[in-house]
Amino acid sequence: MISGTTRLIAHLGYPTEAFKAPLIYNPYFDECGIDAVVVPMGCRAQDFPAFLKLVFKLSNILGALITMPHKVTTVGLLDEVSTNAQVAGSCNAVKLDQDGRLVGDMFDGEGFVRGMLRKGQRVEGAAALVVGAGGVGSAIAASLAGAGVGRIAIYDNNAATADGLRQRLTRHYPALETVVGSTDPAGYDIVVNATPLGMQKGDPLPIDIARLAATTYVGEVVMKEEMTPLLLAARERGCAFQVGTDMLFEQIPAYLEFFGLPSTTADHLRKVARIGFPQ
Amino acid sequence: MISGTTRLIAHLGYPTEAFKAPLIYNPYFDECGIDAVVVPMGCRAQDFPAFLKLVFKLSNILGALITMPHKVTTVGLLDEVSTNAQVAGSCNAVKLDQDGRLVGDMFDGEGFVRGMLRKGQRVEGAAALVVGAGGVGSAIAASLAGAGVGRIAIYDNNAATADGLRQRLTRHYPALETVVGSTDPAGYDIVVNATPLGMQKGDPLPIDIARLAATTYVGEVVMKEEMTPLLLAARERGCAFQVGTDMLFEQIPAYLEFFGLPSTTADHLRKVARIGFPQ
Repeated sequence: MISGTTRLIAHLGYPTEAFKAPLIYNPYFDECGIDAVVVPMGCRAQDFPAFLKLVFKLSNILGALITMPHKVTTVGLLDEVSTNAQVAGSCNAVKLDQDGRLVGDMFDGEGFVRGMLRKGQRVEGAAALVVGAGGVGSAIAASLAGAGVGRIAIYDNNAATADGLRQRLTRHYPALETVVGSTDPAGYDIVVNATPLGMQKGDPLPIDIARLAATTYVGEVVMKEEMTPLLLAARERGCAFQVGTDMLFEQIPAYLEFFGLPSTTADHLRKVARIGFPQ
Repeated sequence: MISGTTRLIAHLGYPTEAFKAPLIYNPYFDECGIDAVVVPMGCRAQDFPAFLKLVFKLSNILGALITMPHKVTTVGLLDEVSTNAQVAGSCNAVKLDQDGRLVGDMFDGEGFVRGMLRKGQRVEGAAALVVGAGGVGSAIAASLAGAGVGRIAIYDNNAATADGLRQRLTRHYPALETVVGSTDPAGYDIVVNATPLGMQKGDPLPIDIARLAATTYVGEVVMKEEMTPLLLAARERGCAFQVGTDMLFEQIPAYLEFFGLPSTTADHLRKVARIGFPQ
């Protein structure tokens, strides 16, 4: 129940119609008696820099969730951004620190890594292939690097995009072995689809599935179906895997900690969420 | 339940802690399945002009409720303000019109007049004394004038404040008889306390109670108690009256109509409100 003491988490993006966060966070806040609310605010690109500054002047602001099309822009508008956000080149969470400075972080990749760890998968020292070096692929690569993988290969249709991410990784993690890879998953412990392939019927698989070993952990970012064609194929080959919504729900505890709110598990959040998948 | 399709009513004021509107509107919206939400936003005076403009750029903004300390400032920030807001010199509701212009209105006084009419009281042609010519007194005088009273006397401790309101009334209602009055209620059909007297224990009564006739209708704006000392004295003398919260609840249907939302009665709103009075 929103009252005059309720603290706001501004959910900034445009358009707002497909926003999922209010349907996950707010039922959790209700259940736990946390006096905060996620409020969708449909902010267009041209208004965003000014609005971001002013919304953080509100006396009852707690933080902001940043989504399309503002994740990249946000990085340049803050006083400080985390290493994850710098490597990712985008930011999906903003708050004020104790000195009133705007600080940002990026939790998409954190959700991915938390999903792996929760399933008992080894991340430290592992060899990872990230297919797709856009926003979400960059965020996942950043978090895998932060979690201590030993080697990361990046593949993107656009070789310059892949190499840009590789260079950002190398800058922040000089000891990490990074290469521009291919769609061949052989030899990797972790393979992630961070492309939109699987959204549309008839999309080709994002990797060369015949070369996928049963010992490789397969991650998916597409949420259109619980079991995408890639995941069905991976399961058939005996691979362990995580679905697209794992990343979504696993990152929310990270956000809650960032905002200084009582946190919980991804499983709990799935239970209280007023939203079903696939959509 | 807030989702990506929910339209926002920004409740702009500072500080927010005592805001009542969210606890009245939001339960009503929930009950009626209206996909809108009132969100308190603690906006300080120095940020208000810029924030007001930007909040109305949001794609899902429906309107704004304006409260302390912004009601007066708002008048100068809009493209168009109603006659009530011009006479009151303050504005407590803002929306975009079909041409994208910011338009404002003032419903405090409307709530007062609706309260009278609902109780079957005559307003048209009546003689009214408004004690207190600040924001709320001005709003009530404006609405009484708009509703067709024949004569209005204004009293304020500060004679210039009283005369300022009298002049604004005369400018917009040249046919209306207006005078600067006193605290003597004799000869009036309607007497309104629009001062804070009654908020504090031991406050003097705002009018000369010995001169109050049983035929006079007494209105109160103080909400600290349901029955303020003035209302207790008026009831003892046999006067009809309205309590402070009548004005609060009666103005909400006017707001709902202004925002183009399904409206209801003040009594219904009292029932669904998640707030008790006195506070």
